[in-house]
Amino acid sequence: MRNVVVTGCPRADLAEVATLAEFGVATVHEAIGRTGYLGPGIRPVYLGSRVGGTAITVVCWPGDNLMIHAAVEQCRPGDILVVTTTSPSSDGAFGELLATSLQHRGVRGLVTTGGVRDVAELHAMNFPVFSAAVSAQGTVKATAGAVNVPVSINGQRICPGDAVIADDDGVVVVERPRIGSALAAAQARTEKENASRAAFREGALGLDRYDLRDVLSKRGVEYLDHEAYLESQ
Amino acid sequence: MRNVVVTGCPRADLAEVATLAEFGVATVHEAIGRTGYLGPGIRPVYLGSRVGGTAITVVCWPGDNLMIHAAVEQCRPGDILVVTTTSPSSDGAFGELLATSLQHRGVRGLVTTGGVRDVAELHAMNFPVFSAAVSAQGTVKATAGAVNVPVSINGQRICPGDAVIADDDGVVVVERPRIGSALAAAQARTEKENASRAAFREGALGLDRYDLRDVLSKRGVEYLDHEAYLESQ
Amino acid sequence: MRNVVVTGCPRADLAEVATLAEFGVATVHEAIGRTGYLGPGIRPVYLGSRVGGTAITVVCWPGDNLMIHAAVEQCRPGDILVVTTTSPSSDGAFGELLATSLQHRGVRGLVTTGGVRDVAELHAMNFPVFSAAVSAQGTVKATAGAVNVPVSINGQRICPGDAVIADDDGVVVVERPRIGSALAAAQARTEKENASRAAFREGALGLDRYDLRDVLSKRGVEYLDHEAYLESQ
Amino acid sequence: MRNVVVTGCPRADLAEVATLAEFGVATVHEAIGRTGYLGPGIRPVYLGSRVGGTAITVVCWPGDNLMIHAAVEQCRPGDILVVTTTSPSSDGAFGELLATSLQHRGVRGLVTTGGVRDVAELHAMNFPVFSAAVSAQGTVKATAGAVNVPVSINGQRICPGDAVIADDDGVVVVERPRIGSALAAAQARTEKENASRAAFREGALGLDRYDLRDVLSKRGVEYLDHEAYLESQ
Amino acid sequence: MRNVVVTGCPRADLAEVATLAEFGVATVHEAIGRTGYLGPGIRPVYLGSRVGGTAITVVCWPGDNLMIHAAVEQCRPGDILVVTTTSPSSDGAFGELLATSLQHRGVRGLVTTGGVRDVAELHAMNFPVFSAAVSAQGTVKATAGAVNVPVSINGQRICPGDAVIADDDGVVVVERPRIGSALAAAQARTEKENASRAAFREGALGLDRYDLRDVLSKRGVEYLDHEAYLESQ
Amino acid sequence: MRNVVVTGCPRADLAEVATLAEFGVATVHEAIGRTGYLGPGIRPVYLGSRVGGTAITVVCWPGDNLMIHAAVEQCRPGDILVVTTTSPSSDGAFGELLATSLQHRGVRGLVTTGGVRDVAELHAMNFPVFSAAVSAQGTVKATAGAVNVPVSINGQRICPGDAVIADDDGVVVVERPRIGSALAAAQARTEKENASRAAFREGALGLDRYDLRDVLSKRGVEYLDHEAYLESQ
Repeated sequence: MRNVVVTGCPRADLAEVATLAEFGVATVHEAIGRTGYLGPGIRPVYLGSRVGGTAITVVCWPGDNLMIHAAVEQCRPGDILVVTTTSPSSDGAFGELLATSLQHRGVRGLVTTGGVRDVAELHAMNFPVFSAAVSAQGTVKATAGAVNVPVSINGQRICPGDAVIADDDGVVVVERPRIGSALAAAQARTEKENASRAAFREGALGLDRYDLRDVLSKRGVEYLDHEAYLESQ
Repeated sequence: MRNVVVTGCPRADLAEVATLAEFGVATVHEAIGRTGYLGPGIRPVYLGSRVGGTAITVVCWPGDNLMIHAAVEQCRPGDILVVTTTSPSSDGAFGELLATSLQHRGVRGLVTTGGVRDVAELHAMNFPVFSAAVSAQGTVKATAGAVNVPVSINGQRICPGDAVIADDDGVVVVERPRIGSALAAAQARTEKENASRAAFREGALGLDRYDLRDVLSKRGVEYLDHEAYLESQ
Repeated sequence: MRNVVVTGCPRADLAEVATLAEFGVATVHEAIGRTGYLGPGIRPVYLGSRVGGTAITVVCWPGDNLMIHAAVEQCRPGDILVVTTTSPSSDGAFGELLATSLQHRGVRGLVTTGGVRDVAELHAMNFPVFSAAVSAQGTVKATAGAVNVPVSINGQRICPGDAVIADDDGVVVVERPRIGSALAAAQARTEKENASRAAFREGALGLDRYDLRDVLSKRGVEYLDHEAYLESQ
Repeated sequence: MRNVVVTGCPRADLAEVATLAEFGVATVHEAIGRTGYLGPGIRPVYLGSRVGGTAITVVCWPGDNLMIHAAVEQCRPGDILVVTTTSPSSDGAFGELLATSLQHRGVRGLVTTGGVRDVAELHAMNFPVFSAAVSAQGTVKATAGAVNVPVSINGQRICPGDAVIADDDGVVVVERPRIGSALAAAQARTEKENASRAAFREGALGLDRYDLRDVLSKRGVEYLDHEAYLESQ
Repeated sequence: MRNVVVTGCPRADLAEVATLAEFGVATVHEAIGRTGYLGPGIRPVYLGSRVGGTAITVVCWPGDNLMIHAAVEQCRPGDILVVTTTSPSSDGAFGELLATSLQHRGVRGLVTTGGVRDVAELHAMNFPVFSAAVSAQGTVKATAGAVNVPVSINGQRICPGDAVIADDDGVVVVERPRIGSALAAAQARTEKENASRAAFREGALGLDRYDLRDVLSKRGVEYLDHEAYLESQ
Repeated sequence: MRNVVVTGCPRADLAEVATLAEFGVATVHEAIGRTGYLGPGIRPVYLGSRVGGTAITVVCWPGDNLMIHAAVEQCRPGDILVVTTTSPSSDGAFGELLATSLQHRGVRGLVTTGGVRDVAELHAMNFPVFSAAVSAQGTVKATAGAVNVPVSINGQRICPGDAVIADDDGVVVVERPRIGSALAAAQARTEKENASRAAFREGALGLDRYDLRDVLSKRGVEYLDHEAYLESQ
């Protein structure tokens, strides 16, 4: 990794990102071919947010938040900070003061594979934070890293300017060039889901709606009455 | 495991299960001799539910929710779906559309050793879900499994029709034939706990109420004044 | 470990502890030189508490809460029970009845490296609990341990009478002799943070406020325009 | 769980179990329909054993090995001790002295969801041990449990007398009534694998041997030249 | 992810990769600026191998090894298979038969974020395998994935044809275009380390050799005699 | 934590420590009242060592091994380095060059709650290392810490000069003032175990030797014939 702060990165269109965010993480993840999900290990520090923005990426040394400070200056309204470390670290590299600085700049949230602190204050500020850990353990500001280089989390590549969507299901990333098709696919999927929802409310079954009876049969799944099953054991 | 959907399973009496649920998970676990608890790894996706129902069991392949769809058709009012996988999987095999289908059929909740998604929507629907993970990662509908065969979670055997009780402490299962005695034991325990609670509110000590001073003494526990202790170190 | 219940331990001054608690866990942890934090593994069982008190320490055998009962008798108003086990145990060694007993005695909360149960009831009682696990699994009262001996959690030594502060960030411990200096340092840090917060709200940057531009430069961090960066790859 | 020591359990035929053991854990697991595997969490404490025997089951309280002592008396030549605890425990409940006792009785190994100690000595004795943890932490002998009741590990039910096979891949259990069919299926599978191995050594491909080209095609997998792929990105 | 098998990928020069492998994982990781390491979670299934080759990448569905079979056909002498799954899976997706097939084709080893089985046989074949789990649990061959698309493991991007080096320290990946500079840097580092090793064998200290006394002093580290330290506490 | 290197610490008597080491970790842990064990998370990087020495303690920042370099200078023949970090870190902070330096000084091994690398080389050097992780990930030398201050691992306090014993069961620490009594107790326990071992080899049972039949009976454990048990279910 080169120790660099990359400036002037292009961002995804904020209006498009906002529309995408309304679909929620699970729908967007489906809409882009089941990619982009940052995994079950990154959780909201408090439930109830749904947020979208454009990625500013940060690579920190474990136990060190120097590069988060460098990243703040690169932030514009609509950005979301995406932080990772060169090796696993649960330390509280982010808290209320950094959130204050970000909120002033119009940043919409933080995503990190590391830890955060000041949870009560972040909650009170209504600043959405998604992290792998909560920890009061402080960090130093001593070691170089990078801002706005491509990073990978849970096998998903994130470039600066990509769309980041986060809610109670976690975080999904959409590459900038694919946001247009993601919007179309999410819209199509939502319409399909709306129709399914309406049908399920009337009592339709997924078995019929998704043609699964045939799948069950082809995979050799038998139907057996309870009594017959007990006798066969 | 035989690839089978077992139909027409007998269920525990729903009125009895409802009464049992009111005692809560911890009390029921105690009432049946400290068995049936599905372990600390299965947690509510949002706090604040307490629910009871009769088990419909499902065995899925990891990353595949075909058999959940097959199970929905077997559900009746009062049931709770209990899902496990043949090997560990955190994928979001269950979400809001399946919950809609289940809610239409009068199903009271879902318990899974795997993952779920659409947490915000499940919360808004007030559909209780207890899982080992939250994950937006989708699943396929491609591989055979089983519905309504006996399963084991955390060493506890669960048969279709057994009582399932879940709250903020997790999930406990009561075998169908033992529900009557569980009710009696839970009632007795609750009365005893009510008496203890009243006594503790007046300042009684567990040491006296449970005759523990004698236990401490027999196990060789000494009482030492702080000063004497420091000197002895 | 000697099997002993140490009585009559001196406590930190309760008024000082209460003042310290208002600063919160992260600030106090910083104020005492980034020590005393019990780690990210101990979490509130429900969000929203901030509490301070004086430690009563308990060492239990796994799956056994005999010594918690012995510890209750040693508690005075303002205390917080700090429980650990001789080896890892997630069992629910603490619940609503013990909390009732503690609340009667004026105890302010519980911290444990093990498990607790009756989460809904503890929440309803507004009794703050910080634990490594929630588990309905019950415990026995059969094996000796210790009350009010020094214990260590996450590398932090805790003596009876030390100050314990807990909130949504976890738990921090301040040794009794250092509470005075902790108060002064927390006050100084808070004033400094208030000034920083005000500055950040006006758009100041941590880079300038903490003189980090020089650090970045000394560590060899370069600034590169996005186009130049892409060309260099 | 009833606190009971069940005596005089019937065992699987030892000659059959020995034959089954020679096939190894992975083959036997396949032969019985991909069931019976105790999971990746139970590992050999040293590599290089392959062993089979008949299960003597033990349920212990965490941190307590009283019931292992009770189980020793129930052991006969050819048995394997299968130990689990009522909640997770890594304590070293088993070591060289118990192994000496078991070896005298002709017991062939130990499987446990808990911990063991004296690893160097067990290795020197050539006594095969498969466990979830190694820990020097000792246990007490104070709490009731059970011997020779059905237990469940990783969702697999194990009854006393069932066949237990263990090697570097972990542990698999075969229900007593299914050992005959398991032997036949393992033999058939081994013959099929021998043929496959011979073919693979000659350069045959699984794609052809298992008719997977058609599966790939039906699932929509395309073949693309490297250059074409890069252009399509 | 597009369901595709990419054919005809260019590979790194095998002679260069072989030379690089001799430096070992830790040295190569250092030589390329502390990048490329696949993390402490991927371990050799048996100790004692050191191997290098060119990456063939595979993305599988959890519990499904269809795409490994598709990948075998794409392998040439000197390749190493690098397998990951779309979500975490410990299943034994790879074993002795696939290894036989790979060995016939001159493949040098396997790296996987999932599980493997037939450990004893792989050891006997001397086929190096590095995995996150060992599990006898079998997989199906039913779901699409990809071969030879870029993948990310532990934040490191791996393209087909990149150099993969593995030993008892785990696995490191070197991008194809950087192998030349990696060789030079590894050689330079090794010479420096040889000099350091010779000096350390004579009693030199890292404090002097790396000019760390000054660092300690600047960071405020004091030297205190034991007696003075005790008095200051 | 004060940033300090404490010099001139007194050590335990090396001859006594060597004698103690011969008893092995499990026996010494028992001999000092089941304390001092550093837990199942610290494992030998290769099996087969048994070593004893006097502790030199080191506290590092995560991802930083500056203080290990400072500690080397403080080492004398017979010492064992005991390293911990201020928050969890798996990084490879220790490897072959530091081991070379330590071996020159007569240091007998390394114990760490963090990670190490160069496993193959350490094995070849026969330098015993006990760690929580193996990782090729390098560290910096930038942040202050401490040498020879008291540290705590897994709840056990370790002071410089204490005896450290390590083998395939993990690591145990004996406080310097208790080594004499530990030796006596370990000797007594070994004699008792020798007698037990001889008895067990002749077929004696722990049930009789430890008077456990009475314990079973008092705890309400019943003996039931297999047939009677099945009928009672």
